[in-house]
Amino acid sequence: MSSNDSQLRIVDTTLRDGSHAIAHQYRVDQVRQIARALDRSGVWAIAVGHGDGLGASSIQYGFPRHTDEELIAAAAEVVEDAEIAVAVLPGIGTKRDLEAARDAGASVVRVSTVCTEADIGIQHLRLARELGMTAHSHLNTAHLLDAERFVEQARIVVDAGSQAVFIVDSAGALLTNDVRRRIAALRDALPGVAIGMHEHNNLSLAVANSAAAVEEGATLVDASLAGLGAGAGNCQTEALVAVLERMRIETGIDLWTLQDVADELVRGEVMQRPIVLDRLSMTMGFASVPASYLLHAIRAAERFGLDPRDIIIELGRRKVVVGQEDAIIGIAAEMAAIPRGES
Amino acid sequence: MSSNDSQLRIVDTTLRDGSHAIAHQYRVDQVRQIARALDRSGVWAIAVGHGDGLGASSIQYGFPRHTDEELIAAAAEVVEDAEIAVAVLPGIGTKRDLEAARDAGASVVRVSTVCTEADIGIQHLRLARELGMTAHSHLNTAHLLDAERFVEQARIVVDAGSQAVFIVDSAGALLTNDVRRRIAALRDALPGVAIGMHEHNNLSLAVANSAAAVEEGATLVDASLAGLGAGAGNCQTEALVAVLERMRIETGIDLWTLQDVADELVRGEVMQRPIVLDRLSMTMGFASVPASYLLHAIRAAERFGLDPRDIIIELGRRKVVVGQEDAIIGIAAEMAAIPRGES
Repeated sequence: MSSNDSQLRIVDTTLRDGSHAIAHQYRVDQVRQIARALDRSGVWAIAVGHGDGLGASSIQYGFPRHTDEELIAAAAEVVEDAEIAVAVLPGIGTKRDLEAARDAGASVVRVSTVCTEADIGIQHLRLARELGMTAHSHLNTAHLLDAERFVEQARIVVDAGSQAVFIVDSAGALLTNDVRRRIAALRDALPGVAIGMHEHNNLSLAVANSAAAVEEGATLVDASLAGLGAGAGNCQTEALVAVLERMRIETGIDLWTLQDVADELVRGEVMQRPIVLDRLSMTMGFASVPASYLLHAIRAAERFGLDPRDIIIELGRRKVVVGQEDAIIGIAAEMAAIPRGES
Repeated sequence: MSSNDSQLRIVDTTLRDGSHAIAHQYRVDQVRQIARALDRSGVWAIAVGHGDGLGASSIQYGFPRHTDEELIAAAAEVVEDAEIAVAVLPGIGTKRDLEAARDAGASVVRVSTVCTEADIGIQHLRLARELGMTAHSHLNTAHLLDAERFVEQARIVVDAGSQAVFIVDSAGALLTNDVRRRIAALRDALPGVAIGMHEHNNLSLAVANSAAAVEEGATLVDASLAGLGAGAGNCQTEALVAVLERMRIETGIDLWTLQDVADELVRGEVMQRPIVLDRLSMTMGFASVPASYLLHAIRAAERFGLDPRDIIIELGRRKVVVGQEDAIIGIAAEMAAIPRGES
């Protein structure tokens, strides 16, 4: 790695988080075009692959048009400077998937676990290091822990070899001061460890929170062109770069190249419907429920004749985490069984 | 006025700023439905009328489907608690327009001038007070002045009887710290004067900046359902309320009523195309150019074979203000005359 750890590194996740918004139907020619533009713009890394990480192709998580290896190879083929990053969720992605991703051209692994269960990522982090890859941790659903307890979990992955700890705001539920507190706590407790931020826009705060994170000491930021991502979408890459430039924080990124690919390719060709902050996606952030629950909540609401927002608020009360989406049916059935006015 | 000046008051501007996004074509039945829902939700005031204020119906500013009086009367007819607010731009709106608005049901006047020329609003502020209306100042294009010079201009309108001073970020160009500095300066220099914030979303910071303004002491905030407004749109009312509630700042507003009218009526019926933060609207904020210039810049770019962003950046360098839109043609012609590579 030639990168200096104190230098700001943007990881564009259009080709990974954005995959959720198009039911994982990226074509390799789209991947090539977007990766080429991102590489030219100067982002540090380009995250590629199934929205749910390596090996997620399944009835459960959705079948992509192309395998992870095909998507990674398509991006690797066209980039000159950018790293190719992949996501791995322990329990979904295996050692074999990781080796295949590396062979296809990936150099950065982001091991994603719920922030309360950081130890689940240990094996995959070690494996990534053994394979000679850069190993980063995505501690997701970050609203579940306060700053101090988040740091305890971060220490686990750092001890396992993680070279960066990302605060992943899966629900887009963190307020700006929540972000600042978590970054400050990580900075103080784990000096020398790179801190990353991954935001969703469910409260319209993704760009502001990511910029505040950088101000507070984060040196890695995930963002997505045109904000493409599940639900309310992610931190919008080109808006983040515009704001950082206005804050006189050096990004080394060509803003207009980013804007052009966002408008012409992502918004013009890839996006199937506009990313809007509507009542459902907003309620996910308001209630602190990860984006992966949204479609499940809508389906359960239809089935049981409920307002999906009522289900989302109940899920938030129960502090659900990614991977328990099936529990919605039971919760909705319980709610539907309660006569109106008695809940 | 029964309102306590220290209590937070939200002014919804969907029916005024939003008018720009639909070429001023609101129908009275839409105004009635939106105003009824806003009133029921608990917002303090509902801004109604032509996007460019009272009396703006013209070739220059666009012909609305209905007169200001018809729109105001339609809203006044259905509201029970909310005030009806109107905008007046000196030079466009006259004494007669103000009297007619009052007679139709308006009770709050927002006198809008460029922040560098606050004295232009004096006459209209006095007139509003004489008519027994609440008089507020919108000091627009607020990025043009630093906090100290902004306060000097605010003092002029307060001396003229203005009961509140709004920082109007016409270009969506202010960073969060820019907002905090201006609010703090106003609070210190003009104790007891209500401070208002009016944001546009050109850097994706409208909600964050408005929430920070409230944290810093602003007690009036303008916002628009679904963000409906020119270009990148305004601060999204329902997102702002969600964030304030999460910050445990009492709004007294029913969030779900707001979300429903935003999704079903504003996004579902009124909006002609989604509000997106694309390269053009973003560049307006990045370059600090008011939204009213966008269509003019696009037209001039087509005419002279230029990238509209180059024109916008040049307009920003020249520190243009609302009302000089005609100057674009001359600027674009100059730019087009410069051989490529020599600019």
